[in-house]
Amino acid sequence: MGQNLVLNMSDRGYSVAVHNRTVSKMRDFLQGPAAGRSISGAETLEELVGRLASPRKIMLMVKAGETVDTYIEGLLPLLEKGDIIIDGGNSHYPDTERRTALLESRGLLYIGTGVSGGEEGARRGPSIMPGGSSAAWPALKHLFQAISARAADGTPCCDWVGSGGSGHYVKMVHNAIEYGDMQLISEAYHIMRTLLGMRYDEMARAFDSWNQGRLESYLIEITAAILRTRDDDGSPLAEKILDAAGQKGTGKWTVVDAAHLGVPVTLIAEAVFARSLSARTEERQRASAILGDLSPAPPDLDEAEKARILEDLEAAVYAAKITSYAQGFMLIREAAREYSWEIDYGAVAAMWRGGCIIRSAFLEDITAAFREKQDLESLLQAPFFAKIMRDALPSWRRTAVRAIEGGLPAPALSSALSFFEGYRSNRLPANLLQAQRDYFGAHTYERVDRPRGEFFHTNWTGTGGDVASGTYNA
Amino acid sequence: MGQNLVLNMSDRGYSVAVHNRTVSKMRDFLQGPAAGRSISGAETLEELVGRLASPRKIMLMVKAGETVDTYIEGLLPLLEKGDIIIDGGNSHYPDTERRTALLESRGLLYIGTGVSGGEEGARRGPSIMPGGSSAAWPALKHLFQAISARAADGTPCCDWVGSGGSGHYVKMVHNAIEYGDMQLISEAYHIMRTLLGMRYDEMARAFDSWNQGRLESYLIEITAAILRTRDDDGSPLAEKILDAAGQKGTGKWTVVDAAHLGVPVTLIAEAVFARSLSARTEERQRASAILGDLSPAPPDLDEAEKARILEDLEAAVYAAKITSYAQGFMLIREAAREYSWEIDYGAVAAMWRGGCIIRSAFLEDITAAFREKQDLESLLQAPFFAKIMRDALPSWRRTAVRAIEGGLPAPALSSALSFFEGYRSNRLPANLLQAQRDYFGAHTYERVDRPRGEFFHTNWTGTGGDVASGTYNA
Repeated sequence: MGQNLVLNMSDRGYSVAVHNRTVSKMRDFLQGPAAGRSISGAETLEELVGRLASPRKIMLMVKAGETVDTYIEGLLPLLEKGDIIIDGGNSHYPDTERRTALLESRGLLYIGTGVSGGEEGARRGPSIMPGGSSAAWPALKHLFQAISARAADGTPCCDWVGSGGSGHYVKMVHNAIEYGDMQLISEAYHIMRTLLGMRYDEMARAFDSWNQGRLESYLIEITAAILRTRDDDGSPLAEKILDAAGQKGTGKWTVVDAAHLGVPVTLIAEAVFARSLSARTEERQRASAILGDLSPAPPDLDEAEKARILEDLEAAVYAAKITSYAQGFMLIREAAREYSWEIDYGAVAAMWRGGCIIRSAFLEDITAAFREKQDLESLLQAPFFAKIMRDALPSWRRTAVRAIEGGLPAPALSSALSFFEGYRSNRLPANLLQAQRDYFGAHTYERVDRPRGEFFHTNWTGTGGDVASGTYNA
Repeated sequence: MGQNLVLNMSDRGYSVAVHNRTVSKMRDFLQGPAAGRSISGAETLEELVGRLASPRKIMLMVKAGETVDTYIEGLLPLLEKGDIIIDGGNSHYPDTERRTALLESRGLLYIGTGVSGGEEGARRGPSIMPGGSSAAWPALKHLFQAISARAADGTPCCDWVGSGGSGHYVKMVHNAIEYGDMQLISEAYHIMRTLLGMRYDEMARAFDSWNQGRLESYLIEITAAILRTRDDDGSPLAEKILDAAGQKGTGKWTVVDAAHLGVPVTLIAEAVFARSLSARTEERQRASAILGDLSPAPPDLDEAEKARILEDLEAAVYAAKITSYAQGFMLIREAAREYSWEIDYGAVAAMWRGGCIIRSAFLEDITAAFREKQDLESLLQAPFFAKIMRDALPSWRRTAVRAIEGGLPAPALSSALSFFEGYRSNRLPANLLQAQRDYFGAHTYERVDRPRGEFFHTNWTGTGGDVASGTYNA
């Protein structure tokens, strides 16, 4: 990915000096893809630093974690006031917060930036989400925006996110949203394959047609391509792939942070957990031997019915996807409040429109919603999306019902539906829950007919007197 | 809670010396509830330690966090080899791991124990879940089992959990399961009230009758009592309580740990997030103004239909509850592996049978399932529960469908259903997800027709050659 970013920079007319701890790797690169370009090698950090003009801009493309700290320690004594270190890996945002503070205390500048798009994105134009020392942005803006992808309107998919670890935070949420999108597509595929009994070429055509509409996105596009891909024996390759999903960490980090901040990112959590459940293949096989014959026979459907079900499914995926992004932005908003970042949500959506894995037509509409109302509380409250949600809701409900009646798990689709129904509820049953907490733990409650902040306790049992409040930790 | 534990110990014939930083509080206790008992006060830690026989057993009932460390620091220089410090608060298990190691390195013993049951449980017999230095257990067993609750068969609801922080871990999961139980009951109440249009006394009777059957439990019992409770004006008190649920931390901690360990505790996560969503009352009110009129009219039901729906609902709550406990034990099992604890799952279930908030008849069956098969992989695989799940599944599906069709959120009920359908699935759609990850990030995949551990990569696009594996962090 680092090499591809360098080639991308070189395409745009920038001279780049490169360094790799393993000198042979660097030589292979210089004599291979980099040959004939204004790309030079430096065998040591000293040499690298010596070759750069001030303010120096040094970008690390190394494994997140200690390696980043090791390079920073190596570079610190070599740099001068105003020089910039950039971390382009998937670092955890608290590390970026810490490193930004460290470098700024030494008169240096630090940028932690998300870079999304994989190898190909790095080469042709990724989505770049920089945060950290704002004083570094003017020196980097031209370069970063030159190498980044561009949205349909020509705007670079790179803009300033905010201070501290906000760039890496936004990238973390991006990845978690990606988990959600992938899970939703997988559930749609499961319904098509299992409930509707569709063949692979039929499914590929369905995703192709979705990709012509409001679900147009990179992930839908590659899904169609995947479903069309054949194994050596001519059968669909996807059928041969083991259903054990891997994961690396950004999804988990997002769930962890959301739990800490109390932000209900239910679809993302279900997507992360669905991967964990899928990975327990042997345990599922044993459970299946005991419980696996509980699926009703798939319904016998004619083509017109199938088409109607597919239409509902498309609307359900779209509505669930809107809910997921609403949850993701809810989390970014809460994080910005908690960590004191000033974030332009419209700019974040705009950066995701191209280059990255979740790039889609849909992100144009999110960008527009935030441009229309900068302090939009939730995407679900934006008139554009509210109308879509209203229209899609019957289809969404029917789809969730079909999955349940067919014995299929659809955790992301149905969890998002529960969230949406709860989000639009003036009254949830949490009044009972508060009564329970007050009953057994004297946690007190507020009342609908009294101002917020006034707390009441009922002596429910009529015996034992009033117990002290807040002593039971539930 | 500390005072009540002391009174409980005194009831059982133990002499106790007490200390409180605020001397007046201690005096109030000694002259009040403790008067005439063999309970003495110590104004300083020195005095407290001086009054105890060796090996000393000192139990801290203080706020989790730094306060515990402060007391440990104060006690360390006063204690002798073999003395025992016990932390009976809701400490986070990594703190207990650390403190156990610290004390053992000084020749002392440390116990971190969960104590559940609230004020009343502490007084009459709580569930006690001790872990830490196993060498301390023989010195404490008699006391702890004497003051604990007893199961129906007379067994004390206290047994040794395991080393390090395992006692507090088990208590943390207990609390998270409690979140799940409370959420399930709230969803059932929501369905009764909103979908079935039941009056409060009717709902109270329904919970009463559930409490006569397999759902017999403390939380169902108090729910009936709560629904029967009237406000000063004679109307149901629960209606006046604000639907904004609070939470303190153990639920979040559980979600965080489950995310780290990759254990899909979906029902607990939904319960924690449902509290977070409920707490956003003002935001929900604004959303409700935009999207709140999307609930279909409740169906017009005759009594026989209502009874059938209630019967389904009871089965759904029971099946979801089994799933939730299966997830909770899955987490404890994974934690035991990760943190090197040896845990007797049957003993854990047995300890929860009485005294604590989640006490129930159901825990007798869980205890029996683990007694029958010590290395049971999942409760869902135990013959007893597998049969119940099979029988309850149609009711559960119908209930989830009714909630969806009625526009009601039922996140715990429906998330658990998705989990169960996935858990019993020989094949999940994660094969597509793995294909996607390999497509955009060259993450590789395994194949169903090849041994585990062999990884394959497909050049999906036919262009660009093979990209390096594992470079994109998704």
